[in-house]
Amino acid sequence: MSGVDEVARPEGGSMQELLRVAPGSGVVDLTAVDPRSTPGLPAAAGGGQRRRKWARRQVELLGAGLGRQQEMLYASAKQAAGPQAPTSTPSQAGVDLAGERPRRVLLVLQSIDCGGKDGTIKRVAGAMNPRRLHICSFGPPTEEELRHDFLWRIRRALPPPGYVGIFNRSHYEDVLIARVESLVDETTWRSRYDVINAFERDLADNSITLVKVMLHISYVEQGERLMERLNDPTKYWKYSPSDLDSRARWDDYQAAYAEALRRCDTDAAPWFVVPADRKWYRDWAVAHLLRETFDAFDLGYPAADFDVERERERLRA
Amino acid sequence: MSGVDEVARPEGGSMQELLRVAPGSGVVDLTAVDPRSTPGLPAAAGGGQRRRKWARRQVELLGAGLGRQQEMLYASAKQAAGPQAPTSTPSQAGVDLAGERPRRVLLVLQSIDCGGKDGTIKRVAGAMNPRRLHICSFGPPTEEELRHDFLWRIRRALPPPGYVGIFNRSHYEDVLIARVESLVDETTWRSRYDVINAFERDLADNSITLVKVMLHISYVEQGERLMERLNDPTKYWKYSPSDLDSRARWDDYQAAYAEALRRCDTDAAPWFVVPADRKWYRDWAVAHLLRETFDAFDLGYPAADFDVERERERLRA
Repeated sequence: MSGVDEVARPEGGSMQELLRVAPGSGVVDLTAVDPRSTPGLPAAAGGGQRRRKWARRQVELLGAGLGRQQEMLYASAKQAAGPQAPTSTPSQAGVDLAGERPRRVLLVLQSIDCGGKDGTIKRVAGAMNPRRLHICSFGPPTEEELRHDFLWRIRRALPPPGYVGIFNRSHYEDVLIARVESLVDETTWRSRYDVINAFERDLADNSITLVKVMLHISYVEQGERLMERLNDPTKYWKYSPSDLDSRARWDDYQAAYAEALRRCDTDAAPWFVVPADRKWYRDWAVAHLLRETFDAFDLGYPAADFDVERERERLRA
Repeated sequence: MSGVDEVARPEGGSMQELLRVAPGSGVVDLTAVDPRSTPGLPAAAGGGQRRRKWARRQVELLGAGLGRQQEMLYASAKQAAGPQAPTSTPSQAGVDLAGERPRRVLLVLQSIDCGGKDGTIKRVAGAMNPRRLHICSFGPPTEEELRHDFLWRIRRALPPPGYVGIFNRSHYEDVLIARVESLVDETTWRSRYDVINAFERDLADNSITLVKVMLHISYVEQGERLMERLNDPTKYWKYSPSDLDSRARWDDYQAAYAEALRRCDTDAAPWFVVPADRKWYRDWAVAHLLRETFDAFDLGYPAADFDVERERERLRA
């Protein structure tokens, strides 16, 4: 059993194994995933209310560890870039994919309304180093965005080298809401799965590791969270009457998600389904998915590209 | 004396009053500001090592409060925007200043090397909600940026409505390093103070509140922090031999800072000098400057723009 200030490993496999959506089976059945389940949660977490507190503390510890990995990621990118260190200004955001590039990580968060995307960012990203994060939220496309192909705004939002990107919604909206609400005709959205797979393959080939997460909540839980927003005046702003129209199309959205997961779960860019009725489990699971991604990089700090002893002499002088 | 879980107010005035650089006097003497001093620190902080712990805890509490204010700021912006809620994608970042706009806040951090910009962002922004932050770091301008006027990349990096922007370095580099290292001729940099003042006046007129902070460290402290980087292999990546060339021009940089502070300290966009040899004080002071900025807005949550009771009925149905 791990101490209170150590990161405990998931039980039964890595979170990437436990949460990967039916790899290779060609079938995705979301009804088979219980939104209240807690895959990988170790016995050390305890039971009842204790689990929540344990998981919150674990997320803080995981965040601190991720902060160190973020720094190594950035340090490598900086060294590779030379005097023109990577920055995060919009005029330099990830349009250029050419050449040998240091690694980037991109967490893609998708869910239906009330699924907890904002909360996940607040808790998980909030425990990391904000300086090296590149968070982008995608709303309904603007007129300018609509004049371009659906990936145009996505390409412009990719994290710069050395940064961790987080997408709050993404290009998947273009096969989800676009499909369910018939914003485009069927031929158009049907063609997008292959376009997305080619795009993500290209990102992976250019050192951008995607971590695609669907936060999976139940119909009952969504109802409760919507009612919470209607019962608390500090939450009215989160509510829109159109949320209930979307809720009325629950089955259509679940079907659209299942197809997106099935068609776009690739080895280059796998999909993970995180049971998300329990917020503390959700945050813990996402933090581990990120951690396992970073661990696979086996990062370290770059060696000095100057003569350390000589610089010490210069400084003392 | 305040409890351990309450935010304590600064003593002797607001931090904006205590740290404003010689308002109206027309003289800025940086040597008169002791980088180890702690203006506004209340007696409740205690002495010795206790102060550091106290200040760190206060920054966490201030951050949680700022998180709530960030949410109100965003909620107002969202309500004002209607269905096209403000997002943070680069293709929508703050280029459009026209019309009635909800408030934005922009923290501008400047300092010489090792002044603590990164650390401040990690601690202060790290205690806020990362979802509503828009952090941009400015390095040496790229070729594309150099083809435009010096404010081009700055305009593109302004926070979207409802967001809090943080600039790690800024347009002030164009009257600091550009001046000291003679990257442009004197006529060019001399003309920029007025251009900056007009630009910042325009931002203020368009609801962007600037909080301009110079982190002020001593020559001795800079030497110690540089040596730390040379003595710790996990910090080599932060070091560049050119740091010592800049250090050799310490007086030139101090003079350039003093002139920038004197020429560009306006009521529309005041400059604050934060003594920054003590990291815990630095973070505490910056958090309070942000807090006072938000408090002046007197924010609240927007009223519902729908019939709450009717929506509750619909949800129950």
